[in-house]
Amino acid sequence: MHTIKVELAGRSYPIYIGNQLLCDAELLTRHMLQPRAALITDSIVAPLYLDAVANALTAAGVKLTRVVLPAGEQHKGWDTLNTVFDALLADRCERKTTLIALGGGVIGDIAGFAAATYLRGVPFIQMPTTLLAQVDSAVGGKTGINHPRGKNMIGAFYQPLAVITDTATLDTLPAREVSAGLAEVIKYGLLSDPAFFEWLEHNIDALVAREPGALAYAIRRSCENKAEVVAGDEREESGGRALLNLGHTFGHAIEAGLGYGNWLHGEAVAAGTVIAARISQHMGLMKADEIARITSLLERARLPVAAPDFGLERYLQLMGLDKKVEGGKIRFVLMRGIGSAFLAADVPQSALAAALAASVRRG
Amino acid sequence: MHTIKVELAGRSYPIYIGNQLLCDAELLTRHMLQPRAALITDSIVAPLYLDAVANALTAAGVKLTRVVLPAGEQHKGWDTLNTVFDALLADRCERKTTLIALGGGVIGDIAGFAAATYLRGVPFIQMPTTLLAQVDSAVGGKTGINHPRGKNMIGAFYQPLAVITDTATLDTLPAREVSAGLAEVIKYGLLSDPAFFEWLEHNIDALVAREPGALAYAIRRSCENKAEVVAGDEREESGGRALLNLGHTFGHAIEAGLGYGNWLHGEAVAAGTVIAARISQHMGLMKADEIARITSLLERARLPVAAPDFGLERYLQLMGLDKKVEGGKIRFVLMRGIGSAFLAADVPQSALAAALAASVRRG
Repeated sequence: MHTIKVELAGRSYPIYIGNQLLCDAELLTRHMLQPRAALITDSIVAPLYLDAVANALTAAGVKLTRVVLPAGEQHKGWDTLNTVFDALLADRCERKTTLIALGGGVIGDIAGFAAATYLRGVPFIQMPTTLLAQVDSAVGGKTGINHPRGKNMIGAFYQPLAVITDTATLDTLPAREVSAGLAEVIKYGLLSDPAFFEWLEHNIDALVAREPGALAYAIRRSCENKAEVVAGDEREESGGRALLNLGHTFGHAIEAGLGYGNWLHGEAVAAGTVIAARISQHMGLMKADEIARITSLLERARLPVAAPDFGLERYLQLMGLDKKVEGGKIRFVLMRGIGSAFLAADVPQSALAAALAASVRRG
Repeated sequence: MHTIKVELAGRSYPIYIGNQLLCDAELLTRHMLQPRAALITDSIVAPLYLDAVANALTAAGVKLTRVVLPAGEQHKGWDTLNTVFDALLADRCERKTTLIALGGGVIGDIAGFAAATYLRGVPFIQMPTTLLAQVDSAVGGKTGINHPRGKNMIGAFYQPLAVITDTATLDTLPAREVSAGLAEVIKYGLLSDPAFFEWLEHNIDALVAREPGALAYAIRRSCENKAEVVAGDEREESGGRALLNLGHTFGHAIEAGLGYGNWLHGEAVAAGTVIAARISQHMGLMKADEIARITSLLERARLPVAAPDFGLERYLQLMGLDKKVEGGKIRFVLMRGIGSAFLAADVPQSALAAALAASVRRG
């Protein structure tokens, strides 16, 4: 087992990464204030892991409330969140009851937001079971739900007490979900870690084939990168954390434009990353061979590199409500080469148009 | 104008108390990150003050979104909160848009929770217009909404950037609301400030008559007391802040039992305070003459001192979901005399039964 610390003064916490950690009840109970927890998961993860985790906790003397939510991004809204509140209140969960998120990014976001707001805040532990959640969404305290007018519009910064990442859960993950997670892994290389990007170029086939050693290293390096960014800018105020949105401005637009649940988040981010790279290229910041390296790596990870052809107008409209808007202007994360991302407030519309034209899928 | 500071390290903020502050736009804009705000109020306050505040802000160059919510505790739920989100999203309010709560406790709680969760947190300013909000709910960062299963069950600790208390707004407040606010004022005397309790015994008639000097002093002393408690225990963890719930355990049960919106919060707290005092008496901690002083002061403030006769069983049931439950036991705030409140975990049911029997209203 490898442990990474997220350094946040009074709210620092460990990320445990290892094989077969799900049923290690001691790892969970050492972070609980009371032997009382609510285990929140979805209808896909429940048949795979709920009994195992629940039985381990019950054997350790923990009184447990089980909450199984409908799976999928399209259910990440108020109704599903309220299902959690109903279950917690029906079982009289208290301020020291620990909420445990067992699942992917959607479960982590909903359970985390429930923990942030139930009785004005209760303890929270993340047990991510998808690659995307393990390398990204379970770390850093972003929680929330979608609103009909936009993704993640309602939420809170709320840090977990621990993140427990069992790499064995990736064995049951659909191939498409592994690829979606790799989109965020590749992002860390592009942001600030060119050596990791090169490592990924050499090891992407091993990752797609789920070679345990390669996966464990990729998760660890991703978490180290993310922990460092979050420690420096927990609430996305000074700009460092905003860099993590590389590929996400167009990515969110793709997800919203297609309707949530059609493309996976990581797939939309992959296509969005290519657009961000091409905008950078059109502004003279990246070279053609770097764009080729990025698209090649994403393709080898079995990710889409072409975006849906909504047209520029529709994309701008879809991005208008993105949280990264300031003073009416959309901020983009661009790159000055692989491993050198930065935040750009003034992107000429011509660069957007050119990048988009080069990136859309033709019928 | 008098300024009190709430000391919370990086999140310290001022409470401004004065006459005719509502239209002092500079007082608001000095705390804004952008000349962009959403003014949130209710259908009762809007005709009285919305135009005045909005015009002052617009004249100061602030672009404004107006949100008018239905008035009353019965509307403090998800649907009303979502009305706020809809308005903010429709007007494309951003992360640096300041939410301003103009109204009583319900508006402060809803607008504060909206600020805590819109885009994972935006700046927030309280402009309380009821005595209860000015002396209690606008100070300290408790925000939230009700759930069908309990009051304030969903919420967040989220501090405002400033509290602007215009004592002139009390001129238009119904007499019943002035009395309801005095219930919380009297609470501070009972908690830890016997000198203030004595001052209240000498000045309660002036307060009921809304003598400006008396009101200003009562608000100031209440805010000083609350600011001190909140600075010592922001998130109700070490027990200090829990003392502010004196009278609230039975108070919340009365509100829930009668249906929200029948008794005002302060009225229920007054009756709950008498029950807490009588429990203390039955446990040998308070003397009969102290109970008499408390009931006399509350009665002179035109507050109910007798509780509805639901019966002990129903009261226990209504209190079972209160947030102040730990390990299945209800914690009560009791007193060892006027000005000496403490948290009691072990209250014999016989004391509850006796106190309740002595406190209910007979038909």
